[in-house]
Amino acid sequence: MARDKLFILIVGCGRLGSHVAGMLSRQGHSVVARDIAAEAFENLPAEYSGFRVEGSGTELAILKQAKIDKADLVIATTREDNVNLMVAQVARRIFKVPRVLARVYDPKREQVYRDLGVDTVCPTTMAAEALLGKLAEGGEEP
Amino acid sequence: MARDKLFILIVGCGRLGSHVAGMLSRQGHSVVARDIAAEAFENLPAEYSGFRVEGSGTELAILKQAKIDKADLVIATTREDNVNLMVAQVARRIFKVPRVLARVYDPKREQVYRDLGVDTVCPTTMAAEALLGKLAEGGEEP
Repeated sequence: MARDKLFILIVGCGRLGSHVAGMLSRQGHSVVARDIAAEAFENLPAEYSGFRVEGSGTELAILKQAKIDKADLVIATTREDNVNLMVAQVARRIFKVPRVLARVYDPKREQVYRDLGVDTVCPTTMAAEALLGKLAEGGEEP
Repeated sequence: MARDKLFILIVGCGRLGSHVAGMLSRQGHSVVARDIAAEAFENLPAEYSGFRVEGSGTELAILKQAKIDKADLVIATTREDNVNLMVAQVARRIFKVPRVLARVYDPKREQVYRDLGVDTVCPTTMAAEALLGKLAEGGEEP
């Protein structure tokens, strides 16, 4: 476990960020959850044992306070694609974080992230595929 | 194609609804897209050849105007879980629509839909699984 234990910074603690924070915390990783609004931390599940840092995800001072320069992994899950892109850029380019993942709502933006060396998940594309997949399954007898 | 051609009502024409509307329209189905805000229809892709009906997804008169009573399939993709649940209930219980799909952001609500006979997709759960899956892939060398 020691070898695989990562220091992970999660920027944006809504439903997705808090869920992932709880899972990673339970897996034994060291997690810092950050959100601009303190009440977002209420989303964190009971098993979350990491830190909470309140503040903007695009302010360098706040990111340093959240120890972004020590992070093995940064996950950008705010509700704004623009904020996630900014966080991802800062993490990769300024703080040389080795691995960055981001949620991106607009599928058209995924290439920008790829060019930055940032892995993305796009809930819009996944939900569309899942809906169309469900139709294909039951297409004969709707 | 004739046998499989469905009459589909999509309630909520944001990124997900409009993307799915375009795909289903291209597949030859007869699609009606509905949204409370006319500007949402700007999300519809060029290949969309169906109807646009402006109005609330929870008003029966508007739903009738969108011919919900003739629909083979209703897809609820507004950004509000509560609205999607209401649309799904009205479609299933009042208009006896044979198949209803809904987006639900809060995974805790999925059981309510299942009890109604409504299939769901949850972007939050899918995005969390995708993020954790990406980490598991590259877990050794973050």
